[in-house]
Amino acid sequence: MKKILISGFEPFGGGVINPALEAVKLLDGAALNNGKIVVCQVPVTRFKATAAVIEAIKHHQPDYVITVGQAGGRAAITPERIAINIDDFRIVDNEGNQPIDQPIVVDGPDAYFSTLPIKAITHALQQEGIPCQVSNTAGTFVCNHLFYGVQHYLRYTQIGHGFIHIPLLPQQAMFGDLPSMSLDLIVTGLKIAAQAVIDNASDVPLSGGTIC
Amino acid sequence: MKKILISGFEPFGGGVINPALEAVKLLDGAALNNGKIVVCQVPVTRFKATAAVIEAIKHHQPDYVITVGQAGGRAAITPERIAINIDDFRIVDNEGNQPIDQPIVVDGPDAYFSTLPIKAITHALQQEGIPCQVSNTAGTFVCNHLFYGVQHYLRYTQIGHGFIHIPLLPQQAMFGDLPSMSLDLIVTGLKIAAQAVIDNASDVPLSGGTIC
Amino acid sequence: MKKILISGFEPFGGGVINPALEAVKLLDGAALNNGKIVVCQVPVTRFKATAAVIEAIKHHQPDYVITVGQAGGRAAITPERIAINIDDFRIVDNEGNQPIDQPIVVDGPDAYFSTLPIKAITHALQQEGIPCQVSNTAGTFVCNHLFYGVQHYLRYTQIGHGFIHIPLLPQQAMFGDLPSMSLDLIVTGLKIAAQAVIDNASDVPLSGGTIC
Amino acid sequence: MKKILISGFEPFGGGVINPALEAVKLLDGAALNNGKIVVCQVPVTRFKATAAVIEAIKHHQPDYVITVGQAGGRAAITPERIAINIDDFRIVDNEGNQPIDQPIVVDGPDAYFSTLPIKAITHALQQEGIPCQVSNTAGTFVCNHLFYGVQHYLRYTQIGHGFIHIPLLPQQAMFGDLPSMSLDLIVTGLKIAAQAVIDNASDVPLSGGTIC
Repeated sequence: MKKILISGFEPFGGGVINPALEAVKLLDGAALNNGKIVVCQVPVTRFKATAAVIEAIKHHQPDYVITVGQAGGRAAITPERIAINIDDFRIVDNEGNQPIDQPIVVDGPDAYFSTLPIKAITHALQQEGIPCQVSNTAGTFVCNHLFYGVQHYLRYTQIGHGFIHIPLLPQQAMFGDLPSMSLDLIVTGLKIAAQAVIDNASDVPLSGGTIC
Repeated sequence: MKKILISGFEPFGGGVINPALEAVKLLDGAALNNGKIVVCQVPVTRFKATAAVIEAIKHHQPDYVITVGQAGGRAAITPERIAINIDDFRIVDNEGNQPIDQPIVVDGPDAYFSTLPIKAITHALQQEGIPCQVSNTAGTFVCNHLFYGVQHYLRYTQIGHGFIHIPLLPQQAMFGDLPSMSLDLIVTGLKIAAQAVIDNASDVPLSGGTIC
Repeated sequence: MKKILISGFEPFGGGVINPALEAVKLLDGAALNNGKIVVCQVPVTRFKATAAVIEAIKHHQPDYVITVGQAGGRAAITPERIAINIDDFRIVDNEGNQPIDQPIVVDGPDAYFSTLPIKAITHALQQEGIPCQVSNTAGTFVCNHLFYGVQHYLRYTQIGHGFIHIPLLPQQAMFGDLPSMSLDLIVTGLKIAAQAVIDNASDVPLSGGTIC
Repeated sequence: MKKILISGFEPFGGGVINPALEAVKLLDGAALNNGKIVVCQVPVTRFKATAAVIEAIKHHQPDYVITVGQAGGRAAITPERIAINIDDFRIVDNEGNQPIDQPIVVDGPDAYFSTLPIKAITHALQQEGIPCQVSNTAGTFVCNHLFYGVQHYLRYTQIGHGFIHIPLLPQQAMFGDLPSMSLDLIVTGLKIAAQAVIDNASDVPLSGGTIC
């Protein structure tokens, strides 16, 4: 029986809702084949986000961690390939921080790859008709910060961790300029992703690259 | 008690599913406030599409007609503003026709505006958190052909008619490059659109234009 | 010897430059095979734009008219297919007008097709390696207003007229979010377009449609 | 007097031209304030690209290296922030290689940051009206491969190195679906970038991040 911790961010940037938070509320306690989902809520602030997930890791003792965030403008669920050691915030976080080109971990490595099977996850969602593709950048805001921070914290452990970006909810995109995805589909997608993590000890060799 | 006929196209361009057809199957017989939905299926061929809807109009004697088609690449439900008198097919239709710059109705007017309250429809959907925006082009393929053809047929009647484009379904966009919308939301959106048609004898003055 | 009048809009929407105006400055007096270009400047106001071009038509007595405007967000030079009889301004024009769903010409037809050979123009530019594609909507702002107004004015004459949208200049897109085109290429493109107008008494049957 | 080596890739993916190669041909020997540009040509193959640049570095003994590649779909010149240790080719390279999720350097670090002042470069181009923005992913094809490989080779040296992606040329985008940039502007942009490298021993704290 594996335990998967899924974290969701609070609203930010003036928003009143965050699909990641709405999704984890619905995923709390969900049963998987040979597994179970537990969740936690994460503040969108440079100095508290990672600490919140670390605290949940200590509390829940999960086998795997999936951190989840909102990606305005993306049409698909996008497992991230890599976290980079830089904070370069285009907008302020929820406590007013706006660092430019500051390291997340001083003297940390430039980046960490996801330790989740991102190709297996992507394939599993596509097989169920859910839009999904690998992303090669998690940006330089609090999402990437959390991805890097948790990966750094777990670097000497056997706990797998990766970040998944999800689209806006329809009600966040009602003027029609940006793509969206219904909460049902996001929740189903994250559940399939969690199951794929349990089912794939190592990743599968499926093409998922980009030219640039 | 008003009757609204909603038509949906069959799959085309090598696709095996068309969200418009899936939606009308679920909308058949749906009750509205002071109204009811009836539906029909439309072949994606230059010389049969309009005839199929005209036949359904004769059969059902509706008060309003909403023709619906798939718009790959759009993120929102988009009520169309205008139908233009030209067939310029980038791909073949389901019977192999590929006209270039042929009129739909010889000596017909260059275009017909929708006679549905497109701003009221757009506003009603947005109020319910469903991505929606007015579109100023229905393209030059069978969708526009049907829009123009039905508008021309109804030109001396009191029957209101307009065309609404809808996004791809998630399973048509599973590789993540194009936006999509769940069938539930599409069906709900079209029902709200039909209700807005019944509730708005004339359109409302809401901004919905584009610079270009 | 044919005379082609090309008009260019002044800056609008807070901009300090308009590529259409910059282009016509450079095109004034340009020689073509069997032709010559004359130009005029057009204010971006609902009630003065068309009048400015009509005055220039009366003054220059051209054989053809090409009205030109800026299309922020487009990557190519786009000859417009159709002008529609509606003013629906998303932003105010340069005199503060912001009509919603008002006709341009009361009791005018819903639309006018371009009377220029748009496919021949598009092909001629592409042959020279200049990004070009037919557009099926000129929007609902002053560009479309002028396109419709001039087409209406010329409707009983032999003077061909059409509208061509052009991309932003690089310096208008320096933050990299929108496509642009260098002024040199825009000027060359418009000269090739003018030549194609002279060389093609009727249009050529080349595919240039869209699905939607 | 500083020497800057700028490399340009050969055509790939069925293309007959590569803007990077065209640009370096024109940049060969160009004089800068307190500097000079030398160039080299790079094959688009997994096992030869890095070697070609290393050979040119040995030959020219430059102070700085800028590797340059084509980014179809981007509207701006984009200095890359980070190279990642993965080859995941969506298409074959020019010798038929198509690795999936293979490391570029076995046991190499997950990524290397650019050692060029990417914010200073971006600012310098924008000041001259040239579309430019920082990119956070160089993809997973030969461009990223070269970026990583050269950065790894230079890791213990004082030689600064970074990768810059450039848009398609207009003639590569003539059908109008993708943005492009004229060769003149690309060459000017790369010259300004090279000058910014010489003029900025360290980078400047200008915002250039993305949310995701």
